[in-house]
Amino acid sequence: MNIIDVIEKKKVNEELTEEEIKFFIDGYTSGEITDYQAAALIMAICINGMTEDEIVYLTDAMAKSGEMMDFSDISDKIVDKHSTGGVGDKVTLIAGPIIAALDIPVAKMSGRGLGITGGTIDKLESIPGFRTEIPVEEFKQNVKDIGICIAGQTANLAPADKKIYALRDTIGCTNSTPLIASSIMSKKFASGANAIVLDVTCGSGAFMPDKKSAVRLAKLMSLIGKLRDRETVCLITNMEEPLGKAVGNSLEVIEVIEALKGNMPLDLKEVIVNVCIQMMVLSGKYPDVFKCNEKIEEVLKNGKAFEKFRQMVERQGGDVSYIDNTEKFEKAPIITPVIADKAGYVETLNAYEIGKASVNLGAGRLKKENTIDHRVGITFEKKIGDKVEVGDILAYVHASSPEKSLECVEEVKNAYTFGPNKVEKKNILDIITND
Amino acid sequence: MNIIDVIEKKKVNEELTEEEIKFFIDGYTSGEITDYQAAALIMAICINGMTEDEIVYLTDAMAKSGEMMDFSDISDKIVDKHSTGGVGDKVTLIAGPIIAALDIPVAKMSGRGLGITGGTIDKLESIPGFRTEIPVEEFKQNVKDIGICIAGQTANLAPADKKIYALRDTIGCTNSTPLIASSIMSKKFASGANAIVLDVTCGSGAFMPDKKSAVRLAKLMSLIGKLRDRETVCLITNMEEPLGKAVGNSLEVIEVIEALKGNMPLDLKEVIVNVCIQMMVLSGKYPDVFKCNEKIEEVLKNGKAFEKFRQMVERQGGDVSYIDNTEKFEKAPIITPVIADKAGYVETLNAYEIGKASVNLGAGRLKKENTIDHRVGITFEKKIGDKVEVGDILAYVHASSPEKSLECVEEVKNAYTFGPNKVEKKNILDIITND
Repeated sequence: MNIIDVIEKKKVNEELTEEEIKFFIDGYTSGEITDYQAAALIMAICINGMTEDEIVYLTDAMAKSGEMMDFSDISDKIVDKHSTGGVGDKVTLIAGPIIAALDIPVAKMSGRGLGITGGTIDKLESIPGFRTEIPVEEFKQNVKDIGICIAGQTANLAPADKKIYALRDTIGCTNSTPLIASSIMSKKFASGANAIVLDVTCGSGAFMPDKKSAVRLAKLMSLIGKLRDRETVCLITNMEEPLGKAVGNSLEVIEVIEALKGNMPLDLKEVIVNVCIQMMVLSGKYPDVFKCNEKIEEVLKNGKAFEKFRQMVERQGGDVSYIDNTEKFEKAPIITPVIADKAGYVETLNAYEIGKASVNLGAGRLKKENTIDHRVGITFEKKIGDKVEVGDILAYVHASSPEKSLECVEEVKNAYTFGPNKVEKKNILDIITND
Repeated sequence: MNIIDVIEKKKVNEELTEEEIKFFIDGYTSGEITDYQAAALIMAICINGMTEDEIVYLTDAMAKSGEMMDFSDISDKIVDKHSTGGVGDKVTLIAGPIIAALDIPVAKMSGRGLGITGGTIDKLESIPGFRTEIPVEEFKQNVKDIGICIAGQTANLAPADKKIYALRDTIGCTNSTPLIASSIMSKKFASGANAIVLDVTCGSGAFMPDKKSAVRLAKLMSLIGKLRDRETVCLITNMEEPLGKAVGNSLEVIEVIEALKGNMPLDLKEVIVNVCIQMMVLSGKYPDVFKCNEKIEEVLKNGKAFEKFRQMVERQGGDVSYIDNTEKFEKAPIITPVIADKAGYVETLNAYEIGKASVNLGAGRLKKENTIDHRVGITFEKKIGDKVEVGDILAYVHASSPEKSLECVEEVKNAYTFGPNKVEKKNILDIITND
């Protein structure tokens, strides 16, 4: 087989076979196929699209390009959860401990943030001592012993996906639904999940700009799951404004700890409860969907969810005194309120603008090699639907310097718009299953 | 400007501006834009095509990516000639000296062979001592002094085109009419031509498989010429069978010398005469097209064309004793006749198969780094339309070893088909002008 023939076939929009796709993925992973050949093929895929069969073959090949995790000795049903990312998205850090407290094993490999999207691993690393690079055996042992481990992806998890993902970023091929779907699902397959809850975010702060494109992606991922016998449920969630009240790494961890004690803003709670219910049902342990909510409330109220988080932090080397007393988290030196100069109901709080402002503060990274300032970020006092008077505090900017603070205050102010009437925001826009 | 934005624009089939195309070409030439980014953009161009404006901007940018030749001190009308390549195509080596003998300056930069297509420079190098790498000043001086110089392209002639051409070869993007047209025309612009005769070959031994695609390419090149004030004439010529009687480097040079003495097979003569007439008319020195033929015959008969070739060889360091006595050219050790085992009229003599057989002998190169055996090749006794009896000699194979000879004899035999009736072959299929 010859890569040039494979590229030419896709160029003229003919369907590639399983063997041809595997040949490409194996050759690109090993380096025999060059970046420029992969770039040409990926561009042809972006323009001409892929058939369902091609997408599944691509997902399989990328999953199998590295180590395939196997947790069958822990449970015959490993339920995974994945978000397509957003601003202030700390769902994994709250839902994970809740689920573990409900005796469902949580074996979660998460990513780092890139662009305006924060990453679970970066957030966890704001807890002093917390280790996110966990060898596979230790990872398994943690799940066996305490029911939960949240760690970074091992280097050898779907390496083909890593290479292609990085390449797409540099050649204007990020927004391809087949490539996004196969990228996400390949990592889920490789990380040993046999049931998957996907939080497909949409809106200004998400990768998918609108509900329509989010539903298209969700349906495609559901289909991939179905064709490979993975029960898959997709929640389409609203990412027009940041999720919850905090954006920034330690600020979000503090919000997580509060949430695990039962104190959650309503939008965050709605997403958490829905994600948890779907994970519970998929696990097979809580078949009655109407009783799930009650169980969730129980582990939040009796402290078991919080305790599970604390246990995980301890097990992964984190300093639990920070969990017990969040005042210990180092604060940003400059904390400045953002004051409203208009009155009305908050109509928009643009998540993309907030994400950008937060990256500018140092809470995220534009390029992989950027380092993160765990202290900085933004906390919100007013969100969509809230009534605002002139002079009210809209938000606080937590910055490392007066200059950065000044800039960010402007950016945050500009992310708000106001109207005369109260806007109702739906947080869960749709649920898509593949059964 | 950002290359990712440019790539994304072409991906969604929006028209690129002159600035965007220049940005790509300059960045790719300097190395700031990577091979994989160029590969993605080129694939998007291959699939989505280019507008006329885009094609002209691309041609301009590639021409200006290196040194722009200027022969205005030699003549205000530099007529160039270019062939899209073929098997046995020695037209430049015959037409050049004829044109120079008619007092029209010939300043020709030629290429090397790749794939089944031979190259003028490789053929010239079969003359011992002949130098094809000529510094620009010497090149100009030769044209001034003796009216002709045929040399290899300088390294800095349209370097962007060189890079893109090599890249296209590895990413399945060779057969794109806009990219072929702009590649050829950029080199013509850079090499200082202000009037251009293009020999667009078509058929099994050419890049364009049929007349329709050759005409499309010809029209596009004519248009590029017109939009940049270069008079351009395209001849669509037949490359179903090899041109003339010889394929192979020194074998073709011997055929060239014979031709310049007036001994040409009819197909070769028809192409030579038509190319020369177009160059003569474009030069402005021979405005009456009906008198051109007579002039060509004159310089062939009185020895001036041959003398011009001999003068060029001498000037460029070649051993003219080989020109005076072609028996001196080193012969291939094994010369084997190909005997007909069928009777009838030759219906096809597949130029592609002959080209491949000739490369296998060592007369051409599949990869740039391959070396060439100047001695080997094939000479034909029977071509399309000729009557053949069983036992007749169809051709001779000139090989370096018995094994290669045996293989080639089979290949040559298989390139022939026979029929009951005499086939008429047209050599000039169309002429396309841009005035």
